[in-house]
Amino acid sequence: ADPLKGKEKSTVCAACHGADGNSQTPEFPRIAGQHEDYLLRALLDYKRGDRKNPIMAAQVENLEKQDLADLAAWYASQSGLVLKR
Amino acid sequence: ADPLKGKEKSTVCAACHGADGNSQTPEFPRIAGQHEDYLLRALLDYKRGDRKNPIMAAQVENLEKQDLADLAAWYASQSGLVLKR
Repeated sequence: ADPLKGKEKSTVCAACHGADGNSQTPEFPRIAGQHEDYLLRALLDYKRGDRKNPIMAAQVENLEKQDLADLAAWYASQSGLVLKR
Repeated sequence: ADPLKGKEKSTVCAACHGADGNSQTPEFPRIAGQHEDYLLRALLDYKRGDRKNPIMAAQVENLEKQDLADLAAWYASQSGLVLKR
C-alpha cells in the first residue's frame, strides 16, 4: 500500500475526518495514527456491509481494495496523534 | 457519564485496547482520545448488532447503556494520544 497515493485519494475523506485524520467533530472518528490493519479492515467491513453506515457505505462503494489499502496506509502514517509517553 | 466509573469498568477492555486505550496491536484500535460521542455510538452499534464483531458483541452484551457511556467517557478523557501541533 502506498501512503502517498492514499493522500491523493483522500480529498473527499478530509471533509469529515480532517486533512490529516484529526477530525474536529464528535460524529467522525479521529483516524490519524490508527493502526493500518485496523483502518483497512474497517473500510472493507463498510464495503461488505459488516459495518453499517450510510455515509461510509457510499464512499467505499466505488473504491477498489487497492484504494482502501492506500487510504489506510496514508492515515496510519499521519503523526497528528502521537504517544505522549 | 463518569470517566472514573468508566476506568473501574475498563479492566477487561485493557486486555486488548491497553490500559489507557493505546493498543499496541494492529488488530485492536487505539481509542485513547477518540471522541466520546463516537466511542459511545460504536459501543451501542455493537450492542444493537449494527457493527458486527464477535469479540465486542460478547463484551457489551451484559453492559447497560450507562456502563457504555462511562467507558466512552474514560477512554475519550485519556490523553495518551495528543495533537502534535
